[in-house]
Amino acid sequence: MAMKKVLVTGMSGLIGKALRKQLEGKYELSALNRSDVPGVTCHRADITDLEAIAPAFAGQDTVVHLAAVIARGEGTWESLLNGNVVGTYNVFEAARRAGVKRVVFASSGATIGNYELVEPYKAIAEGRYDQVPPTWEKLTHTSPVRPGDIYGCTKVWGEALARAYSDSYGMSMLCVRIGAVRPADKPEAPRQFSIWSSHGDIARLLEACVEAPPELKFDIFYGVSNNKWSYRDMEHAREVLGFTAQDNAEDHR
Amino acid sequence: MAMKKVLVTGMSGLIGKALRKQLEGKYELSALNRSDVPGVTCHRADITDLEAIAPAFAGQDTVVHLAAVIARGEGTWESLLNGNVVGTYNVFEAARRAGVKRVVFASSGATIGNYELVEPYKAIAEGRYDQVPPTWEKLTHTSPVRPGDIYGCTKVWGEALARAYSDSYGMSMLCVRIGAVRPADKPEAPRQFSIWSSHGDIARLLEACVEAPPELKFDIFYGVSNNKWSYRDMEHAREVLGFTAQDNAEDHR
Repeated sequence: MAMKKVLVTGMSGLIGKALRKQLEGKYELSALNRSDVPGVTCHRADITDLEAIAPAFAGQDTVVHLAAVIARGEGTWESLLNGNVVGTYNVFEAARRAGVKRVVFASSGATIGNYELVEPYKAIAEGRYDQVPPTWEKLTHTSPVRPGDIYGCTKVWGEALARAYSDSYGMSMLCVRIGAVRPADKPEAPRQFSIWSSHGDIARLLEACVEAPPELKFDIFYGVSNNKWSYRDMEHAREVLGFTAQDNAEDHR
Repeated sequence: MAMKKVLVTGMSGLIGKALRKQLEGKYELSALNRSDVPGVTCHRADITDLEAIAPAFAGQDTVVHLAAVIARGEGTWESLLNGNVVGTYNVFEAARRAGVKRVVFASSGATIGNYELVEPYKAIAEGRYDQVPPTWEKLTHTSPVRPGDIYGCTKVWGEALARAYSDSYGMSMLCVRIGAVRPADKPEAPRQFSIWSSHGDIARLLEACVEAPPELKFDIFYGVSNNKWSYRDMEHAREVLGFTAQDNAEDHR
């Protein structure tokens, strides 16, 4: 049986590299990237240009869309508008035109980041665990969004667009609200003990989305490790995808 | 006591005209509009140009942002991107820079429009009332979004941005998911018996948002009349704003 063809945007980034490692040998991988990605078929183009990126999508089974202005607090309005608002539209639209059946979209915990302004999420993010009440509720994929900044708003946009593309065209559009993935692959600040994801966990979760049943047409999952103090629900990913994170921020105290 | 200063974008539109009629004499009104609006102070500029619109916001207490590519199904991607994504950012940003304390944002029922693809909302929208089960739940302001199209996605974007501006700058940002407001001021298709709003009801609801307590920093309300078959919850507006719609689509059967 031929290997499934998977196109990854932003493969040169931190998460892109982790995902490549996870998928290599199991899928026919290619990259859509501004800079060259050695050792893999790479279409060099900028996602702000729909016509330029179109050829990369031909014949693909699944697209994993990671390319973006990636970090909360980064980016001017213009770069977020072009890279995340227009860029995400272009990727979804190019996928649709090419008949791609599934897009896995790298959303972000920034979609709900401002819950950290209110308790108990504030205490958790600040590591004041003795001030967290005995019972409290994790945020789920159906909690109303509360974006941390304009970057977070661009990810809400991407999720809304994913929902509309799924309904309108029958495409499977799966969103992963990625947490804090760090170059050193360990939590480095108090709030990261809640929202950290290891390279391995995020790569495995993205792979689980690639492998999800075709009938799964739309969903949103959080992407964090199996952290004791996570305020982001991972039960939904377990129930729907059978995914369980393997790493735990507490192992890095 | 001086009258409160209210700037209305898109005053020349159908809802803008109804709102003007409702507010005139009670507020010091001005318009931000591409075309001239006779009889009122009118700043002529396009909301796609942040610098050009800035002067209109000086000294305003409240902005009611109606200007947009307004109808579901209308508009190219470029016009939606410029008019609704960039335009809404520009209006919120101009308001912030001018120190405006409140923005009332004309969102849309299109943010949840694709619930009409599934029962019981489908049956209700199609007027098949005998196929609606005895008990069912209205959509509330916390139901996950399900935009009907890209137009709906731009309104989800506006709501997310409103949330972020409220959290980041302490501005009061109130979103109204406007239903079907018609030139003839009556429902004209089966689904409009559910989602119709009279001119009077939408104008009164927008005024209720202008008049809401300053402590109300963010919220989302549906804007439909008191329709027997509404699937959009109006209880939240009643509880928070004390607003009750006066008209009913059934009176136009």
